[in-house]
Amino acid sequence: MRQAGRYLPEYRATRKRAGDFLTLCKTPELACEVTLQPLARYPLDAAIVFSDILTIPDAMGLGLSLVEGVGPRFANPIRTSADIFRLGIPDPDIDLSYVGNAIRLIKRELNNKVPLIGFCGSPWTVATYMIEGKSNHDFTLVKRMLYDQPKLFHQLLELLAESSLRYLLAQIEAGADTVMIFDTWGGVLSTPAYLEFSLRYLKQIVTDIDDVVPTIVFTKGGGQWLESIANTGCSAVGLDWTVDVAKAKNQIGDRVALQGNMDPAVLRSHPMTIVNEANAIVEAFGAHPGHVFNLGHGITPDIDPDNVAVLIDAVHSRSATILCNSSI
Amino acid sequence: MRQAGRYLPEYRATRKRAGDFLTLCKTPELACEVTLQPLARYPLDAAIVFSDILTIPDAMGLGLSLVEGVGPRFANPIRTSADIFRLGIPDPDIDLSYVGNAIRLIKRELNNKVPLIGFCGSPWTVATYMIEGKSNHDFTLVKRMLYDQPKLFHQLLELLAESSLRYLLAQIEAGADTVMIFDTWGGVLSTPAYLEFSLRYLKQIVTDIDDVVPTIVFTKGGGQWLESIANTGCSAVGLDWTVDVAKAKNQIGDRVALQGNMDPAVLRSHPMTIVNEANAIVEAFGAHPGHVFNLGHGITPDIDPDNVAVLIDAVHSRSATILCNSSI
Repeated sequence: MRQAGRYLPEYRATRKRAGDFLTLCKTPELACEVTLQPLARYPLDAAIVFSDILTIPDAMGLGLSLVEGVGPRFANPIRTSADIFRLGIPDPDIDLSYVGNAIRLIKRELNNKVPLIGFCGSPWTVATYMIEGKSNHDFTLVKRMLYDQPKLFHQLLELLAESSLRYLLAQIEAGADTVMIFDTWGGVLSTPAYLEFSLRYLKQIVTDIDDVVPTIVFTKGGGQWLESIANTGCSAVGLDWTVDVAKAKNQIGDRVALQGNMDPAVLRSHPMTIVNEANAIVEAFGAHPGHVFNLGHGITPDIDPDNVAVLIDAVHSRSATILCNSSI
Repeated sequence: MRQAGRYLPEYRATRKRAGDFLTLCKTPELACEVTLQPLARYPLDAAIVFSDILTIPDAMGLGLSLVEGVGPRFANPIRTSADIFRLGIPDPDIDLSYVGNAIRLIKRELNNKVPLIGFCGSPWTVATYMIEGKSNHDFTLVKRMLYDQPKLFHQLLELLAESSLRYLLAQIEAGADTVMIFDTWGGVLSTPAYLEFSLRYLKQIVTDIDDVVPTIVFTKGGGQWLESIANTGCSAVGLDWTVDVAKAKNQIGDRVALQGNMDPAVLRSHPMTIVNEANAIVEAFGAHPGHVFNLGHGITPDIDPDNVAVLIDAVHSRSATILCNSSI
């Protein structure tokens, strides 16, 4: 998830200078600046480019705006089949060049100290916003299209999968060391619908990236489908905080790395609780060499930055002890 | 889930007469009337008493109001440990007598044509509203209490479990033929937190009901924990629409009945789609004798009542074919 964000005062300062969220994403110098802010503050092991999962539909001409406290809005959402037929695949070097430029800047600044993660949203997740036109947790319009016009909906998803692939390849070309696909809303689908309308396109993108770099697939609410996700051929599976780590290890073993999975809400509690929860997760993964600790979802604006420091310190020290003991 | 509701014009008429939602719940004649409305319209196999999962905290004095389009609000939410210590266990025959009275009226009207389901919310789910004071999908305050003051939080959950038990026993005494516990928000917890703070109390209530009547336990988002839910000793497990029926059958087999699990969003689609989706679910359960078809969650107000008729007809005719074939 994004490491930068409104919980950091230095982010709020840059955001204020930028004027709005999209300008921040689209100005490579500013995107670079906020990407690096968490690394200046914390001893993190990786950076993730500051961007948004809705850059692709914005580049397709849907007119994205992000309003504080309201969420994303599209001025021109998808309403008819004609709206879909007229969509083109964005050229990442032209229509989304700001992301490649930000990555090049960030890589130069990072100077190989830590790897950089690029990302995009999953076709299904991005499609939900394009069709609803905004956040709608009932998914009224997009589910109606899914159920009643599956062929038409597949056309849209196919277009998004191809756009996402080109976008991720451009990020890799610009220097991203690994790429992650965020399927934020896969978990609202029935199992057959998830397999047909979300996982299928996750697999397609992962397959077409063809191990140029490691790939990470994350479906929020996807705990029931971990084996299917691991079978996409991805290098790592992101786990939200509801997933039982021991069970996940049993199900998919060493085939892929696992990333996760602390409840971000823990960051609101006492430092001692944060340490205990972090330790429990690190211990549950044990000496599993492919565990990447992160949060099961994003950091909310109300989190005290000092609590993030406590978390990172706890993860580093507990991991060191476990890895040290296991190599004896 | 509630069969009655705003999707029915006759419900909207009664609701208008009642003035507000809570008056509807608290006036046995009106609660009886809306409970029976769906049965007058559709050939349903059971009725569920019209009520709300927040009647218990209302009876505890938290001052419930339900505002259209906003959701539930408590005038006096739990803010301090003193707020918890001062809570008492409501006497269902006095403080919640309107529910028992409604059940007695409904049973008389039903005249044993179909069984009646009573219900309550799970202690965890009810506690989220009591502490947040309203719907808050970040669960900020309640998770802080869970993580930082687990002993205090257990005191509240214990109180709610005991109140729920007495409430369900009173519903059974009044004539409920089976009772269901709705754990709407269990799915937002980590696995260890779910087991400790939600499932534990579900099990306690189910155990104490001690097979007086069959019990149904439903955790929305609980697809990863079906075995643990089945192990509470309940008679049936409710499945939300994300659960793969074949996998659920494999995991918990014939030990318990299964209830579910169509995505309510399907009811917004074409009648042909509704029939196909209903058939797929009925077929996935096959001749499993303990399958109770229902929706994976509640009906939304925008649903066309004719589509509900299409669904019920499809379920009945497909089930009849399957059961007929299996008995040859």
